[in-house]
Amino acid sequence: MSKFLDRLNHISRKNQSLVCVGLDPDPSLMAVSDVFEFNKAIIDATHDLVCAFKPNLPFYEALGIDGLRALHRTVDHIRSVAPDIIVIGDGKRGDIDSTNTMYAKALFEVWGFDAATVNAYGGMDTLEPFLEYEDQASFIWCKSSNPGGAEFQDIRLSDHPGAPALYQWMADKARQANTRGNIGIVVGATYPDELVEVRQRAGGMPVLIPGIGAQSGNLEASVVAGLDTDDCNVLISSSRGITYASRDPATYPDAARNAASNLRDNINDVLIQEDRGW
Amino acid sequence: MSKFLDRLNHISRKNQSLVCVGLDPDPSLMAVSDVFEFNKAIIDATHDLVCAFKPNLPFYEALGIDGLRALHRTVDHIRSVAPDIIVIGDGKRGDIDSTNTMYAKALFEVWGFDAATVNAYGGMDTLEPFLEYEDQASFIWCKSSNPGGAEFQDIRLSDHPGAPALYQWMADKARQANTRGNIGIVVGATYPDELVEVRQRAGGMPVLIPGIGAQSGNLEASVVAGLDTDDCNVLISSSRGITYASRDPATYPDAARNAASNLRDNINDVLIQEDRGW
Repeated sequence: MSKFLDRLNHISRKNQSLVCVGLDPDPSLMAVSDVFEFNKAIIDATHDLVCAFKPNLPFYEALGIDGLRALHRTVDHIRSVAPDIIVIGDGKRGDIDSTNTMYAKALFEVWGFDAATVNAYGGMDTLEPFLEYEDQASFIWCKSSNPGGAEFQDIRLSDHPGAPALYQWMADKARQANTRGNIGIVVGATYPDELVEVRQRAGGMPVLIPGIGAQSGNLEASVVAGLDTDDCNVLISSSRGITYASRDPATYPDAARNAASNLRDNINDVLIQEDRGW
Repeated sequence: MSKFLDRLNHISRKNQSLVCVGLDPDPSLMAVSDVFEFNKAIIDATHDLVCAFKPNLPFYEALGIDGLRALHRTVDHIRSVAPDIIVIGDGKRGDIDSTNTMYAKALFEVWGFDAATVNAYGGMDTLEPFLEYEDQASFIWCKSSNPGGAEFQDIRLSDHPGAPALYQWMADKARQANTRGNIGIVVGATYPDELVEVRQRAGGMPVLIPGIGAQSGNLEASVVAGLDTDDCNVLISSSRGITYASRDPATYPDAARNAASNLRDNINDVLIQEDRGW
């Protein structure tokens, strides 16, 4: 098993949690104006309830150099208070291979993320610079959570046996390329039927499932569909539903804790129902 | 005509050039170690020979906050010495629409780019936050320059009339979405036949063509295939072939100027041959 999967399964068991908290600082929604202070309070209030934090890179980039400084401090803070927790840099990066060498360096060395979301539109060969970081995981954005994702992702490969959709074909290719055990898949919680297809094709790979909460993804169906055969290999990600549960400066950390705790409990209820309890 | 196309055609005519210089600072190749100093010398040596500069964002991100500061100074320097020149932020960004709102803000407000490369895998609906910046152009990464790009991009939509490839279908969708005249297409110079297809489908839209030089794209075929009916609407981008033409600190600006001048001349020879000279 890869170091990433070891780490993911260790922290999931330790905290009895498949919850990933998305850290998407939006000044128009934050209870306090300082990004690092905001993130720090969320992290302090939730880190014993989650397996991962997922900073969404453009939310920091939109705040300029100051936002990126806050991101560095955020990652450092997670490392200091909860070094076991997985930190996922969510940027859906992807370009030709020589350029991806620089993206991989930025994500895994400069920012020091344990995992990153990547875009495979350029072809699986372009991902090699990410995959060379054997201890870090690269999650391929396969089936997106938005309503219009089907436009390209659901195109049928009619000439192939079974006429798979593009997102299914991409999952097949990901599995073939996963010689180091460090590839994951992203499937939106808004598409649990598609997640069933991806899980069948990507056995052994972790699946990152965003879209719970504000995007109204189906939690129970997503957990059931996402579960792997041995380890869970699932991360259920919620951002706005946790970080903006309250916009009151006095109560938002407690509200975030309650929301994360509820999400963990709801997921764990599904695990028990599936006879997969901790 | 959109403000972006006005600007592009103005500067192309003024400098009689379709050349875009990619600014991809790689410490292992740069003639001098300081990124801004390096870029400044390249810009000063070439700005009267080009229509655009294209900073490749991951090359700056891989250098951390200092790299991003150098990027800010680079954009500022272009504005001060050559305010007419188009500056394209090359990051192939793309996510769901709420996240793309932040990417668009980062690219067009924080960095102040005139255009950006974007990734449409999430569906055309996700690009709306970019397109709402009416005066800035968004170039969709349609057909990449790498050898493995066909893996997903050339998938045939067998159920559709003419069985278009995915990259052709994406160009069709881009054209349909181009109500503001601010969408462009990226097609690698390594695929001139595919560029013919894209130009037929994307009449009126600018095409950004990387892959000349180090990637051995076919210059003549790319120019001929990329030309639009009225204005050229073509940007031929070269990075390493110009910026690393010499690695000698004493001569690299002159070498870059010579390389950019040769590329401009070679392109203009093709224009004359096509009876499209300035």
